[in-house]
Amino acid sequence: MTARAVTILGAGAMGSALATPLADAGWAVNLWGTWLDDHLLAACRRGEPHPRTGVPLAGSTTLFDSPDLDDALAGADLAVLAVASAGVAEVTRRAARGLAKVRAVLLTSKGFAPDADGRIRLLPDAMRDTAAEQGVTLPPVIAVGGPCKANEVAARRPTGAVFAARDKALAEEIAKNFATPAYRAEPLDDVSGVEVCAPMKNVYAIALGVCDGLAARGGEPFHDLKAATFAAAVRELVLFAELVGGGLRTAIGLAGAGDLEVTGNSGRNKIYGVRIGAGESAAAAYAAMQAEERTVEGVPAAGLAAKLVDQRAPQLWSELPLFRAIRDILAGHDDPGARITDAVLPRV
Amino acid sequence: MTARAVTILGAGAMGSALATPLADAGWAVNLWGTWLDDHLLAACRRGEPHPRTGVPLAGSTTLFDSPDLDDALAGADLAVLAVASAGVAEVTRRAARGLAKVRAVLLTSKGFAPDADGRIRLLPDAMRDTAAEQGVTLPPVIAVGGPCKANEVAARRPTGAVFAARDKALAEEIAKNFATPAYRAEPLDDVSGVEVCAPMKNVYAIALGVCDGLAARGGEPFHDLKAATFAAAVRELVLFAELVGGGLRTAIGLAGAGDLEVTGNSGRNKIYGVRIGAGESAAAAYAAMQAEERTVEGVPAAGLAAKLVDQRAPQLWSELPLFRAIRDILAGHDDPGARITDAVLPRV
Repeated sequence: MTARAVTILGAGAMGSALATPLADAGWAVNLWGTWLDDHLLAACRRGEPHPRTGVPLAGSTTLFDSPDLDDALAGADLAVLAVASAGVAEVTRRAARGLAKVRAVLLTSKGFAPDADGRIRLLPDAMRDTAAEQGVTLPPVIAVGGPCKANEVAARRPTGAVFAARDKALAEEIAKNFATPAYRAEPLDDVSGVEVCAPMKNVYAIALGVCDGLAARGGEPFHDLKAATFAAAVRELVLFAELVGGGLRTAIGLAGAGDLEVTGNSGRNKIYGVRIGAGESAAAAYAAMQAEERTVEGVPAAGLAAKLVDQRAPQLWSELPLFRAIRDILAGHDDPGARITDAVLPRV
Repeated sequence: MTARAVTILGAGAMGSALATPLADAGWAVNLWGTWLDDHLLAACRRGEPHPRTGVPLAGSTTLFDSPDLDDALAGADLAVLAVASAGVAEVTRRAARGLAKVRAVLLTSKGFAPDADGRIRLLPDAMRDTAAEQGVTLPPVIAVGGPCKANEVAARRPTGAVFAARDKALAEEIAKNFATPAYRAEPLDDVSGVEVCAPMKNVYAIALGVCDGLAARGGEPFHDLKAATFAAAVRELVLFAELVGGGLRTAIGLAGAGDLEVTGNSGRNKIYGVRIGAGESAAAAYAAMQAEERTVEGVPAAGLAAKLVDQRAPQLWSELPLFRAIRDILAGHDDPGARITDAVLPRV
């Protein structure tokens, strides 16, 4: 039997990490690096651990440099799009003709994409629009979500993902074909719910980080406040999922509450929040993270999500007290702990 | 205006802590210590911090020793029952006549109580049965839940609780009368949902601790597994809430997911799980915790919860893979990490 072939677009942390379960599951894996990934591919070619995950690339992976996109996609049964969200449009444009020939595109990139008129779209819609401009109709886009740290996926530590397709049977089939002892995906039919939970959990992780950071001021932890913030974040994730036509079960499952749990305990968005909670201004903390080349995805996501609410359901603002608090904190509110407390403690 | 009077039964961590918000909210507070609390009251009388919270008792609190139960309850408008769950029956029996005269009893103790025939009851039902044996009808019992660490409540760090009464208007009124800037409660009508989430979150926190403990073996964290375990625990909390006639919203709110967040990151049940994850046998870890006089409430709760499922809904077992895994681990399963992985990763 010929091995099935998958092409991963994007050789950063998540793209390179997924080569591990795919190779373990019996796929022939092509890994294509964007014009920003040359140094990552070079390190892999030298046999070094991938610079972003610290884990060696799965041995059987075939590497392709950015000019060789067509070759990378030739003969692929499936594609995985795993570039930074800012690169999704450009890579989709360049890869559109090759992507048209695969059975499905799994999308791990997450974010919100404004169209030319400033209307906020979810990434699968933005990808379809971009491909249409090239005269191409994309195959089904499968939203990949859930608590998946790239270094853990690469190192075969147990990971539960979600794969969401409009056609749930397709998600089921692909989840089966991806399954390894360490990496398994729950099939869902809620593409939009998964797509909105992923960037929003980054936004809410900033607030969870703020709660952790408050301990640096008084020396005592604020566990109760962090837990109340977590519960408020789950409540608001449900509202965001419903806003885009998704479901509560997605928001309280792996893609929502599960991913929020890990994102609020580790990662850049949380670290950014810790700095703010500990006393840095939001602007200074952001500049410091930028200087360290540490992207804080929750910050741009918060701005775009605010537009999404404005455009689609402005009446929802009154039910999003924690999101409003985060917006105020990012805008420089001078007492982030008090602002979150006011937002998340029950009103009586 | 005469200050309203509240009597707190139980001078341990939570009982003594609640004196702070109650005094701040304008209540005259009586704090009664059980026959096990003499040394705690003695420390408070000497002006020392409460031994269990490390925080001084609210200054205006009036202390009562165990023989003075009737005096402590005389004239009270409200009572709070805050003894260890093993003491609920005996204290209810002794206090029944005094409790009959208050407007409502707030219950912070949490657990499952078998009746004489071994049928598992929730604590409010057990209290009513005990009082009935004394010929007494209790006033409404209000279930207090949510992420409330006693030392944080005592120290006025922000805390969001839930108060659940069958009559939600009563819960609302009492939540209003308890509210301070730092302590606020969400009124609910789901007594059973709150009562079942509290002990079950202790059970699930053991599994979250196991995930943290695994890092001690290989040196690398298992964040993805912990997050998947968290999502599985939330899913099963929903099923437990529904099993006792409660609701999903309770299980995904402060009393469920919120309390699970803090319990899975700190506290004795989590620490017990960490020891198991790091390689100790469940029995040895339990003995060590007992030797340090550190109660692991999730262990007896797991046994009683299993009886609850057997008695009320044995068909539910197939939907509780994580709970089954925890039962196996407590019974000595030799690979707790693999057992949890098998339970929480999606099945395909």
